Amino acid sequence: MGQKHVYDFNEGRVELKPLLGGKGANLAEMTSIGIPVPPGFTISTAACVYFSQNQAYPEGLDGEIDEHLARLEEQMGKKLGDSADPLLVSVRSGAVVSMPGMMDTVLNLGLNDESCAGLAAITGNDRFSWDSYRRFIQMFADVVMGVDSQLFEDELKRKKLEAGAENDTDLTGADLQDLVERYKRILRENAKRDFPQDPREQLDMAIKAVFKSWDNPRAKYYRKLNDIADDLGTAVTVQSMVFGNKGETSGTGVAFTRNPSTGDDEFYGEFLMNAQGEDVVAGVRHPRPLPEMKQAMPSAFRQLSEIRGRLEAHYRDMQDIEFTIEDGCLYMLQTRTGKRTAAAAVKIAVDMVGEGMIDQNEAVARIDPQQLDQLMHPMIDPGASYEALTTGLNASPGAAVGKVVFDADTAERLGGQGEKVILVRWETTPDDIHGVVHAQGVITSSGGMTSHAAVVARGMGKPCIAGASEVHIDADTKVFKVDGYEVLIEEGDWITMDGTTGEVIRGRVPLVPPRINENFQRILGWADECRRMRVRTNADTPDDARRAREFGAEGIGLCRTEHMFMQEDRLPHVRNMILATTTQERERHLDKLLPFQREDFDGIFRAMQGLPVTIRLLDPPLHEFLPDYTGLMVEIERLRLTEAPAKELQAKEALAAKVKTLTEMNPMLGTRGCRLGIVYPEIYAMQARAIMEAACDVQKDTGEAPLVEIMIPLVGFAKELEVMRALVVETVDAVLRERGMDIAYLVGTMVELPRAALTADQIVEHADFFSFGTNDLTQTTLGFSRDDAEGKFLTFYLQEGILEHNPFERLDQSGVGALIGIAAEKSRSVKEGIKLGICGEHGGEPSSIKFVDGFGLDYVSCSPFRVPVARLAAAQATLAQSGVDGGPKGE
Amino acid sequence: MGQKHVYDFNEGRVELKPLLGGKGANLAEMTSIGIPVPPGFTISTAACVYFSQNQAYPEGLDGEIDEHLARLEEQMGKKLGDSADPLLVSVRSGAVVSMPGMMDTVLNLGLNDESCAGLAAITGNDRFSWDSYRRFIQMFADVVMGVDSQLFEDELKRKKLEAGAENDTDLTGADLQDLVERYKRILRENAKRDFPQDPREQLDMAIKAVFKSWDNPRAKYYRKLNDIADDLGTAVTVQSMVFGNKGETSGTGVAFTRNPSTGDDEFYGEFLMNAQGEDVVAGVRHPRPLPEMKQAMPSAFRQLSEIRGRLEAHYRDMQDIEFTIEDGCLYMLQTRTGKRTAAAAVKIAVDMVGEGMIDQNEAVARIDPQQLDQLMHPMIDPGASYEALTTGLNASPGAAVGKVVFDADTAERLGGQGEKVILVRWETTPDDIHGVVHAQGVITSSGGMTSHAAVVARGMGKPCIAGASEVHIDADTKVFKVDGYEVLIEEGDWITMDGTTGEVIRGRVPLVPPRINENFQRILGWADECRRMRVRTNADTPDDARRAREFGAEGIGLCRTEHMFMQEDRLPHVRNMILATTTQERERHLDKLLPFQREDFDGIFRAMQGLPVTIRLLDPPLHEFLPDYTGLMVEIERLRLTEAPAKELQAKEALAAKVKTLTEMNPMLGTRGCRLGIVYPEIYAMQARAIMEAACDVQKDTGEAPLVEIMIPLVGFAKELEVMRALVVETVDAVLRERGMDIAYLVGTMVELPRAALTADQIVEHADFFSFGTNDLTQTTLGFSRDDAEGKFLTFYLQEGILEHNPFERLDQSGVGALIGIAAEKSRSVKEGIKLGICGEHGGEPSSIKFVDGFGLDYVSCSPFRVPVARLAAAQATLAQSGVDGGPKGE
Repeated sequence: MGQKHVYDFNEGRVELKPLLGGKGANLAEMTSIGIPVPPGFTISTAACVYFSQNQAYPEGLDGEIDEHLARLEEQMGKKLGDSADPLLVSVRSGAVVSMPGMMDTVLNLGLNDESCAGLAAITGNDRFSWDSYRRFIQMFADVVMGVDSQLFEDELKRKKLEAGAENDTDLTGADLQDLVERYKRILRENAKRDFPQDPREQLDMAIKAVFKSWDNPRAKYYRKLNDIADDLGTAVTVQSMVFGNKGETSGTGVAFTRNPSTGDDEFYGEFLMNAQGEDVVAGVRHPRPLPEMKQAMPSAFRQLSEIRGRLEAHYRDMQDIEFTIEDGCLYMLQTRTGKRTAAAAVKIAVDMVGEGMIDQNEAVARIDPQQLDQLMHPMIDPGASYEALTTGLNASPGAAVGKVVFDADTAERLGGQGEKVILVRWETTPDDIHGVVHAQGVITSSGGMTSHAAVVARGMGKPCIAGASEVHIDADTKVFKVDGYEVLIEEGDWITMDGTTGEVIRGRVPLVPPRINENFQRILGWADECRRMRVRTNADTPDDARRAREFGAEGIGLCRTEHMFMQEDRLPHVRNMILATTTQERERHLDKLLPFQREDFDGIFRAMQGLPVTIRLLDPPLHEFLPDYTGLMVEIERLRLTEAPAKELQAKEALAAKVKTLTEMNPMLGTRGCRLGIVYPEIYAMQARAIMEAACDVQKDTGEAPLVEIMIPLVGFAKELEVMRALVVETVDAVLRERGMDIAYLVGTMVELPRAALTADQIVEHADFFSFGTNDLTQTTLGFSRDDAEGKFLTFYLQEGILEHNPFERLDQSGVGALIGIAAEKSRSVKEGIKLGICGEHGGEPSSIKFVDGFGLDYVSCSPFRVPVARLAAAQATLAQSGVDGGPKGE
Repeated sequence: MGQKHVYDFNEGRVELKPLLGGKGANLAEMTSIGIPVPPGFTISTAACVYFSQNQAYPEGLDGEIDEHLARLEEQMGKKLGDSADPLLVSVRSGAVVSMPGMMDTVLNLGLNDESCAGLAAITGNDRFSWDSYRRFIQMFADVVMGVDSQLFEDELKRKKLEAGAENDTDLTGADLQDLVERYKRILRENAKRDFPQDPREQLDMAIKAVFKSWDNPRAKYYRKLNDIADDLGTAVTVQSMVFGNKGETSGTGVAFTRNPSTGDDEFYGEFLMNAQGEDVVAGVRHPRPLPEMKQAMPSAFRQLSEIRGRLEAHYRDMQDIEFTIEDGCLYMLQTRTGKRTAAAAVKIAVDMVGEGMIDQNEAVARIDPQQLDQLMHPMIDPGASYEALTTGLNASPGAAVGKVVFDADTAERLGGQGEKVILVRWETTPDDIHGVVHAQGVITSSGGMTSHAAVVARGMGKPCIAGASEVHIDADTKVFKVDGYEVLIEEGDWITMDGTTGEVIRGRVPLVPPRINENFQRILGWADECRRMRVRTNADTPDDARRAREFGAEGIGLCRTEHMFMQEDRLPHVRNMILATTTQERERHLDKLLPFQREDFDGIFRAMQGLPVTIRLLDPPLHEFLPDYTGLMVEIERLRLTEAPAKELQAKEALAAKVKTLTEMNPMLGTRGCRLGIVYPEIYAMQARAIMEAACDVQKDTGEAPLVEIMIPLVGFAKELEVMRALVVETVDAVLRERGMDIAYLVGTMVELPRAALTADQIVEHADFFSFGTNDLTQTTLGFSRDDAEGKFLTFYLQEGILEHNPFERLDQSGVGALIGIAAEKSRSVKEGIKLGICGEHGGEPSSIKFVDGFGLDYVSCSPFRVPVARLAAAQATLAQSGVDGGPKGE
C-alpha cells in the first residue's frame, strides 16, 4: 500500500490542515476533543493534486475509500443505499485557504429509488423523502454530470402549473415522485446515460467532480486574485448527513463566539427551527437571533454555549461556527477562525490577553496591520447599501460626503462657509491647494497615485480618488457625467466618495467615524514594547508633524521642502528665482524665500522636539513650479489673433521660451535632486541656512537643540554627495559661527537610484545616514514612471496577472529589494553602524516593513496616518524573527 | 642609507620609467645603448611624491644629489660655478605620462657673477655669456622665486630705449652686463633676498621648484582633464647643457623617424644652424627641412641617420627625437614614441610587421581604436585654419560643407539638384527625413545625442551637431544668428560643420576624404584573427546592413523596427493604427503595415545572408508617432478664434484628446517596449508574422534560411517575456505551418532595466539570448534621461569634474557594469551557454568593449561606421588578456 490518502475524523487533527483542508482538519480537531460532529472522513489534498495531474486516482485510493466508508457505515449503523434505513452523506470541498463558493458540494448522496423509499418509511414523511431525492438528482446532475440546472427548474415550474400548486411546498409526495421520474429522464437525455442508482458509483463520481472543481475557471480566477497557489489542491470531506428539518426539535444555525463587528464578548448568531443550513444562507426564511434559542431549545442552547467556550479555549481565538440540531441532538458542522472588523480584532485581542487566553505578543501578532487602516479614517457605514457610479484609483484612504464643486475658488468659498464640498477636477495643480484645504476630499479624472492631488490629499489625511477615467467633466457648464450612466451630476449635487476603495457614489451614504480607542492604544503599546525598528513619519508641515507624533511617530524620516515652495505666498518668489538669468538675481529672490523656509523649519522642529527630523533639500525639476507650456502657447496664439498689446505678447513669449528650455522629456530622470543643488548651489545654500537658523532659534528659545538631519536627494555618484555635503557644511558652519552656537547635525542622502545602491560603498564615505527612497528606486529599477503606469499599463498588468502586486504599494523584493540588500551590505562594509531607513510609501506597508526588517534597517518612515500600521507591522516583523506569528488569520 | 632616489643616466633604463619619468628613462636608455647623450642624472618621482606630502626632501636625498653632481662634474671635467670653465646644467621635469608645458624647467643653471665671466672667457663671446646669465636670472626668478617675468621684460624694453637698440641682438655685452645688475636688483626688491650666487643653492632651489610645479593649478587641471592620477609625481632630470648656438658647426633640431602624417618611411623633421632648441620651438627663425642637413652638416647627419635606425630597432616604434650639435658633436636630448595620425599609425604598424620589427599582434595592439574613427569619415583638413562660431554636441562624426537651408523640403529640392546643403533646424521630426536624406549634414539648436536628428544622422553615417544652443533660428525670415556674433547667416550661405568636434564654422573649409586603404584592411584582418568577441552592427535598413557588412560586421545585433514605422509612406497607417478604438480596427491598419514590414525584413535578410539578424520588436511610446500636443492645442485655439468650420475643429479636438491620453510624463519609463506588446498584442503579432514571412520568402528564393533572432525589448519581469515569447512562437509557427516550411529562430530579450539584470536568472528561463541595451540601462541605473542630461546638467557635470566621462559614451563600470556582471553570472547559473551581447552605443567604444570582454560576452554590436573600431578594440581586449599591449602609445 502507498501513501495514506484518507483520514477518519478521529484520525485527523488541526496540524494536518495542509492535507485535510480547513474544513476537514477542524472537523477532525473537534472530534478529537469530544465535540459532537457527524462522523465522516476526509480525502487529502495530495490525492486531489495527483488527480489534477493524472486525471486518475492515486493507486490504492479506491480501496481506502471503501475501507473508510465501511467503517463509517458501521459507526452509524446504516448502509449507503440501504432500502430500509439508508446512510446519506455530504461530499464537500475544503481547501487549505478558504475559497467560499468557488468549488462544488453534493448533499444527500446515497439516495436512489430504493433508499428513497426506505427514507420515507423511516421518517414517515414521503414528501420529505421525494423532495430530498429530487433535489439530489438536480444537484448531482449539475455538479457531477454537467447538466444545466435550469432544465430542472423549468420542469418544476411545469409540474406546478399542472398540479395547480403555487409554492413548492404545495406539491405532494406523489407530485414529487413524478418529478423525480421526469428529472431522471431529463438527465438521461442530456447526459446520455442514466442517473446512477449505485450509491458507491454516486460517491465516486461526486469525489471526482469535487476534485475537478479545483480547476474550474472561477476557482482559478479566485486564486489568482487572492494570491493562492494553484498546486495546493482541495481536500474532499465525506460526512454523514444530519437533518435540521426533521420537525420542531430540529434546527440549524450559524454563530460567532464573539461579536465580529464590535468584538464584544457575546454569543452572536442566528438560527432557524426545522430547517437545513442552506435555508439560513438562502435567506428564504427569516432567521432568529441566537439568544432566542435559549427559550426555543434550552438544552441544545446550553450545550452550544458550553461548546462555544471549549472552542475558544481550544483555538484561543474567536470562532465562526455552523451547527445543526437533529431531533434535539446537537451536531457541529464547521468551526473556523472568525473574520472580524479591525475594531473587533483589536478588542478581542486585548480582551483575550485580559482573560489570560493569549499573551501580549500573540495579541500583537494577530492583528492584520493592513486592516488597521480602517480605524484611521471615516468609513462608509458597513450596513449601508449603495451602488458605485465608477471606481478610480484609491489614492488616499477614508470616505467623505459633500457637494460637488469644480474649481478651487468655489471650494474655498463654500468650504469657508462651513459647507461640505468635494472637489472634482481633471487634475489639480499647486494653484488648487486652497481648494483642497477646504474640501472634504478630491476626485480627479486623470493622474495616478502620486499625482499632485493624491500627494497633497494623503499629506492632509483627506480622501482622494485619482484617475477616475470614466468621469467626464465639463468645466464650462459645471457638470460631470460617468460612462454608462445617463445622469449628469451638477455643481452642488451630493456625492459620496470612498478613497479606501476608489468608489464614487451618487447621493449621501452614511459614514462612521474612525475609532482610535483605548484597546487600539493598548495593542500599539505592546507593539512598541517588542519592535526593533523605529517608526518615523513623512511630514512637511508642523500640523502633519504634530498629528504623526500623536500617532506615535518617533521622528520625521522625510520632510519634503518642495511643498513649501508651492504655497501661494511663495510661488511668485519661486518663479522669479527660477526665471532669474544671473546668480545674483537668483540669490536676491532666494533671500525673499529664506524667511518662509526658516519659519517652516522652526514650526517643524518645535513639533518634533527631542526627536530627529530629516529634511530633504529641494528635489523636483524646476519647471514643476512654472506655468504649463501648452497653456502658454495657446494663450500666445490668442493674444496674436486678438491683436493684444505687443508688450503683453512679448512678455508671454519670453516666459514661454524660458519654460521650454526648462521643460524636460523625462523630468523624473532630468535636472532634479542634487543635480539642482550642483547646478544652482545657491538654492541648497539658502535651504541649509534656513534650516540651521531655525535650529538656532529653537535652541535659543527652548534650550533644546533640534536633532537635524539634512538629506541630499537623488545622489548617484559619490562625488555629488561629496560636493553637496561640503556646501551644506560650509553654510551651516557659517550660520553657527554667526550665532556663536554649536548644534550637532547629520548630512546624509537618499538612496533612490540603482547606481547609488550599487556603489553604496563609495557614497557612504560622505554620508552619516542613508534613507532608501523606495518610490523613486522602484521607478528606476523597474523603469516604471508611476504617473504613466498607474491607470495605464500597470493597471493592465495587474488585471492580466502579469504582475501579482502593484510594486508601488508592495515593495518589489526580487528587484528593488535586491538593491536594498546590496546597498545595506556595501555601506556597512565601510561604515559598520551607518544609520539606514526607508522613506518611500512602502515604509507604511506591512509586507515591505517585514522584508526590510530582514536587512536590519534602523527605521521606516511613512505618512502620519500609516504610523500606527507601521508600529504594529514592525512589531510583527520582530516577533516573526523569534517565531511568533498570528496564526491562521481569518480562516 | 634609505631608498635610492637618484640615478645617473648610465644607471637607469626604460623599465624604470615609473620612477624616472618618460624623459629621464629614455635618456638613460639611450645612454645604455651607447647613443651620445649629454651626461646627467634623474631624481625619482618617489622623491617628488615624498616632497609633495612632507614639503621636505626624503632623508639622504641631499647627499645623493651631492654625490651624483660630483660624479657629473668629474665626467664632464668641469665644475658647477667654476670661474674658469663652468659646468652648466638644465633642470627639467618629466612625469611618467607626458604633460607638455604644464610643469617648470630651468636652463643654464650654474651661472653666477664669476662663472659668467669664465663662460665669456672660454667661449670668447661675452655677449653670449651675459645674455645667457640675463636669461637665467629671469627664468630662475620666475620659476623658482615667483617674481613676475613681466618686470624683467619691461626693464629689457627700458634698456633698449636707453641704448637706442631696436632688437635684443642690438644690445652689446656691456648693455647686457648692466641689465644683469638691474635684474638682480628687481629680484632683490621683489623676492626680498639676493639672487643666489651659490650654484649648489641654485640647484637645490630649482629641484624643489620643479617638485612644486607638480601641484600647480594648471598641472592639476591638466591631470583631471586627461585622467592622470594625482599621486604619480614628476621626476627631475639634471643634465649638462650643450649649446647648439656656438657657431656654424653647431645646430639643433627635432625629427620623427618616419612621417607622422602619412607613415611613410622617411626621416622627417627640421633643424636650425647655430641655434638653441627653444629657437626651433619659438618659431622666431624659420627652420630648414631635415634632408638639407645632409649638405649642411654631412657628418652629423650621417650619425643622426644611423641613430634613427638604432632607436627604431631598439624601441620597435616610430620615435620623436630632439638633438643638438655642439661644435660638430651630436647629442641626443630626447626620444619618445612619436604621435601620429591614424593613417600613419596604420601604415607604420603594417610596415614594421613587413620589416620584421614587430609581429601582427603587436601591430594590432598598437593602434588606438578611437583614433581609427578619423579614417571613417571626411574630416576638416588638418592644415586648414578657421574660427568656429559655436560648438554643439558632436552627435554624429564627420565633417561637411554646404549651403544653409532651414526646412526639409528646400533641402530635398536643392539636394536633389545636386547642391550641397546643410539642414539647420530647432529639432527634426520624422517629417524631416527626406530633408536629412538630401543634406550633407544636420545641425539642430536643441535635442541631445539621441534626439531624432542625431539618431537618424548616425544611422545614415552623416555628420550631425545637436543641441547647438547658441544658434538662434528665425524660420520665418530664414536666418540664424549665433550668440556673441553680429552676423546673420542666411539661407544659401556656405557653412562648414564638424560632427566629430561639434564645431559650426562660417564659410567653406577644405575637407579631406576618409581613408580605408589596404593597410587598414591588413590591420583589421590581423585583428579578426586574434579576437574572441564577435562584432555585429546596429542597422535598420538594407543599405546600413550592406555598408556594415563591408566594414566587417558579422551580423546585426540590433535592428530597430520603429524607424521603419516613421517612414513617410507608413506614418499615416501607423497613426490610424494608434488612433484605432477597437482591436479589430487596429488589426485592419496593421494589415496595411504588414507588407511594408515584410519588405523591410526581406531586404535586410538578403543583405545579411548567412549571418544572424536580431530584430527588436516595436519599442518607443506610441505618441512619438503622433503630432505634437502643444501644436494641436495652438491650432485648435486658432480654429476657434477664426471661426473655422465646426467639423474641422471637432476633428482636431478629438485628435488632441487622443494624443493627450497617450502623452506621458516620462515616456522613457512609460508604455513602451514589451508593455506595448502586452497591451496591444496585435502589434507584435504583425511584426512576428512579417519577420517570418520574409524569412520564408528569402529561404524559398535563395535556398538559404536567414538566421532570425527576435528580440523583445524592455523586459523587467520574467512573466513579460514568457507571455511575449508565447505570442511570437504562436505567430511564427502559424506562418511556418501556412508555408509548410521549417526555419529555426531564436527569441530573446534586451536587458536594459536594472530589474532585468537583477532577476536575470528568472528571465533567462524564457530567453535564447540576452542583449544588453546599455543606452537604456545607463538611463535607468543612473536616473539620467539622455535627452535631458546632455547639454544640461551632464554637460555641467563634465565641465565641473563631477563626472570624468560621459556615461553615454563610455560605459559606467561601477554602476551599469556591475549590473552587467550580475546579469551575466545569474543567467549563466541557469543556462550555461546563453548567448550574451551588448547593443548600446558602448558597443563601439574601446574601453567599454574591453570591459565587457572581461565578462566573456559573445559579441558587441555598434553602428556601421564603428564596426572597424570595434573589431580592433575586441582584438586588443583578447590580446590584453594574454598580456600583449600596445606599449606606451604616443609617449
